[in-house]
Amino acid sequence: MALISIIEDFHPLNNAKLLDRAAELKPSLHHRIVEPVGGFQLKERYSPEKEDIVLHKVKHLAMGRGENLCLDFGTHLVGYVTLSLNYTGSHPDAPAFLKLKFAECLDELSENSGEYNGWISRSWIQEEYIHVDVIPSIVKLPRRYAFRYLKITMMDTSPKYKLIVRHAECMTETSANYRTLQQAEIADPQLRKIDEVGVRTLANCMQDVFEDGPKRDQRLWMGDLRLQALVNSATFRHMNLVKRCLYLFGGSRFPDGRVSACIFTKPSVQADDTWLFDYSLFYTVTLEEYLEETGDGEALDDLYDVAQQQVEIALRGLAEGHLVSEDQAKNAFIDWADALDRRAAAQAVLICAVRYARRLARRRNDWSQMNYLAGEEKLLKEAALRHFWDPEKRCFVSGGQISIASQVWMVLADVLPPEEAEELMGRAEEFLQEVPMLTPYMHHYYLMALLRSGHRKEAEQHLREYWGSMIGSGADTFREAWDPEHPDASPYGGAVVNSCCHAWSCTPSWIIRTQLKES
Amino acid sequence: MALISIIEDFHPLNNAKLLDRAAELKPSLHHRIVEPVGGFQLKERYSPEKEDIVLHKVKHLAMGRGENLCLDFGTHLVGYVTLSLNYTGSHPDAPAFLKLKFAECLDELSENSGEYNGWISRSWIQEEYIHVDVIPSIVKLPRRYAFRYLKITMMDTSPKYKLIVRHAECMTETSANYRTLQQAEIADPQLRKIDEVGVRTLANCMQDVFEDGPKRDQRLWMGDLRLQALVNSATFRHMNLVKRCLYLFGGSRFPDGRVSACIFTKPSVQADDTWLFDYSLFYTVTLEEYLEETGDGEALDDLYDVAQQQVEIALRGLAEGHLVSEDQAKNAFIDWADALDRRAAAQAVLICAVRYARRLARRRNDWSQMNYLAGEEKLLKEAALRHFWDPEKRCFVSGGQISIASQVWMVLADVLPPEEAEELMGRAEEFLQEVPMLTPYMHHYYLMALLRSGHRKEAEQHLREYWGSMIGSGADTFREAWDPEHPDASPYGGAVVNSCCHAWSCTPSWIIRTQLKES
Repeated sequence: MALISIIEDFHPLNNAKLLDRAAELKPSLHHRIVEPVGGFQLKERYSPEKEDIVLHKVKHLAMGRGENLCLDFGTHLVGYVTLSLNYTGSHPDAPAFLKLKFAECLDELSENSGEYNGWISRSWIQEEYIHVDVIPSIVKLPRRYAFRYLKITMMDTSPKYKLIVRHAECMTETSANYRTLQQAEIADPQLRKIDEVGVRTLANCMQDVFEDGPKRDQRLWMGDLRLQALVNSATFRHMNLVKRCLYLFGGSRFPDGRVSACIFTKPSVQADDTWLFDYSLFYTVTLEEYLEETGDGEALDDLYDVAQQQVEIALRGLAEGHLVSEDQAKNAFIDWADALDRRAAAQAVLICAVRYARRLARRRNDWSQMNYLAGEEKLLKEAALRHFWDPEKRCFVSGGQISIASQVWMVLADVLPPEEAEELMGRAEEFLQEVPMLTPYMHHYYLMALLRSGHRKEAEQHLREYWGSMIGSGADTFREAWDPEHPDASPYGGAVVNSCCHAWSCTPSWIIRTQLKES
Repeated sequence: MALISIIEDFHPLNNAKLLDRAAELKPSLHHRIVEPVGGFQLKERYSPEKEDIVLHKVKHLAMGRGENLCLDFGTHLVGYVTLSLNYTGSHPDAPAFLKLKFAECLDELSENSGEYNGWISRSWIQEEYIHVDVIPSIVKLPRRYAFRYLKITMMDTSPKYKLIVRHAECMTETSANYRTLQQAEIADPQLRKIDEVGVRTLANCMQDVFEDGPKRDQRLWMGDLRLQALVNSATFRHMNLVKRCLYLFGGSRFPDGRVSACIFTKPSVQADDTWLFDYSLFYTVTLEEYLEETGDGEALDDLYDVAQQQVEIALRGLAEGHLVSEDQAKNAFIDWADALDRRAAAQAVLICAVRYARRLARRRNDWSQMNYLAGEEKLLKEAALRHFWDPEKRCFVSGGQISIASQVWMVLADVLPPEEAEELMGRAEEFLQEVPMLTPYMHHYYLMALLRSGHRKEAEQHLREYWGSMIGSGADTFREAWDPEHPDASPYGGAVVNSCCHAWSCTPSWIIRTQLKES
């Protein structure tokens, strides 16, 4: 995810002990070499039925000025590309000037990036202009790309020669070890396919931290980490990578102790000056979920205070009546929907976080904290019902708005008795219109609320429809944002900066493997 | 220089012994670090009175999207650039996307290269688009540039930060050793300045071969080498570099033995499939001039046959009446002027080459060759007078055309008795109109003809006016092509690919140091 927050003279509070431990936990990376499986030439927009040419022909394609060659590497990759270039004609008497466009999806490949004018930096567009001074030569591109397709356009040669791409390969990079991938017996072909794509999505985001997306932002976000850690626990079980990320978030925080929404690791570790109310609370949730999987006493000892602090700061910041403040609600992410009134959802996220904080306190036998948190949870729930529940409409209303996000989070927060929650989520369709869900991130919590309220069948159905429609559109990995009705929708003002491999979208693998299994 | 010749399946004749010797003679390169002396921001076209800002301000210039910073390195440089980048604002959350434009001259800096549509490859335009993923960072650009100015345009940052160029430097590269530069006492300030610019021009073209221009083509051309070797003999006296180049031309030739117009040295030595009648004959001339300076017996032994062969092939290819053939004349360079009828000049170049070949033969006591060449020279001169001299117009006419090139080369070939040559060149102004000279290369031979025919004063005057006007326009080095009336003229269809440091233009240093001195 990406948001814009700018704090002048921001100096994060760094904890050397935690950061040193995070550094020790830096994972080794795994590589393999992947070659293209096919190639084609692109005229204007992609039309494979007309343009596809088989790879052995591509190998002999001599490219003059303005011509292009698109290589298809078969599936979504993250790694480093090497091109072996040769020529036909006379000895090259001028450099070859090439444009390279890496694309995760076909629509990205054929989009004119010159027309992009969105609010996310165009520097994320995976395009390079390179000069090759000596031919034949091996060109090793220094940057890492996330892509399936590579379009090579000959900006100029000279009249004396044409360029030949003799060989291309990608050395992939991931900290996911496929030998540790938990076997899952998934009989249903569609669910098996969804799981496969989810696993690939997670693996391609597993680098030296859990990245949100390997194309963009290539960075550790807290809300994303929570979901990645869940899926990791059911797939690669790289528990030290989760631990490392928890130590990074703990190791560089806001001066007042808040966990940042995001951590930079290059050139050195530094908390971003972005704080999100819900993301900071997911630190507490994620630590508890990590401990549930590992029982890691060191992490509990080292990170307990940080986790409790997130909840305490949130509780101290409440407005009158045990309600989240304007500021807290405004800084809750929840979903990309601008129009969303976030107060109810933010209130509910805090209730969830208090529940997880209680569990953490129990691990430490921290009875006073448990009592304190139990009291707060009760007050928060009462406030939620009093303030957001509309007895006539029989749903949660936030700032006059009825959104699915409000219902989902209130259900996850156990604000309603089970039978009322089941009734509420049975009417979920009613709440989908006013503020539609945009991201698979929100859709994940929607599934979780369905499951939590006894709507297993509906959850599975929605999982099949929503994530299945991404696969139906040709996805090798799950996208950051997806609206089946509007495949080009982008929260960023242009599909060319969309991320087509985004780990917050890979949760079906966890749901299929752990939540749908029991039935 | 650059020309287009394409021969299919061209396989040059390589001589391993000569190429091995050339490799042994590969020069060491000298480096120094140069930092910018100033900076400014460019709005549309350069207007220093408005835009100049001093360097210490530049150092703190924070560049947002679309902004630029132009660094002035003080003089023309050839080398490798390193940028140290930092930021202001929040931690960079997206790569910095920069456009770098290196320019030898101010007009190149402000020209829109997107509008270039000439016949020379746009791949020569010294522009790069780069992404910087980690900031702060040191960016070492891998390619060598020829430039004085560097324009850095921020294509995009993110809203969260601005870029600062904390430091920039160029590590220059040349095989010219300034400690071997011959001291010249040149009292006249203008001539001293012209000599200084000439010496810099030569030095910046001295790399591991004598390059025609360090921006473009970065390559060893025979006609250019002849002039570079002359200037080198009066300045850096890097005689082994001349020797290396002679061995390279001898070591990779056309299958029939002709010296190519140009030699590639990367990735390995290979003759270009371009043959120029006059350029191949300059091999003979250059070897003789090199031996005159060095008396190098090894080079004479190794290269004598190659040198004689060039003249012999030319003589065998003559048309009836001892006149150059259509094909020979068509493939003579002489000057960039398309409209030029080259027959007279090509005939005269051959006569000159035969004279030098005779001198070479004398060095080897090769009497039969001397006699043969003397006879040919006589026949060639008679043919020249008979066919090209117009007794009524009292000048040389080539294909009905009266050009200065024809007069110049006939004078250099000693076709006329001295007093007639003096009379002819006394009327030089008359011959300048029909086919104007475009390159300093041609202007050099014009000066030589003036000097050879007793017009020392006129030669000096022309040298001051023509090369002086380049300096007057702000040149740090002499340009490949220059018309004082049309400073933007380009033989390539666009000034952005012009070469502003071109060694065939540096001959005033030799003329001032050796030809104007005696009087």
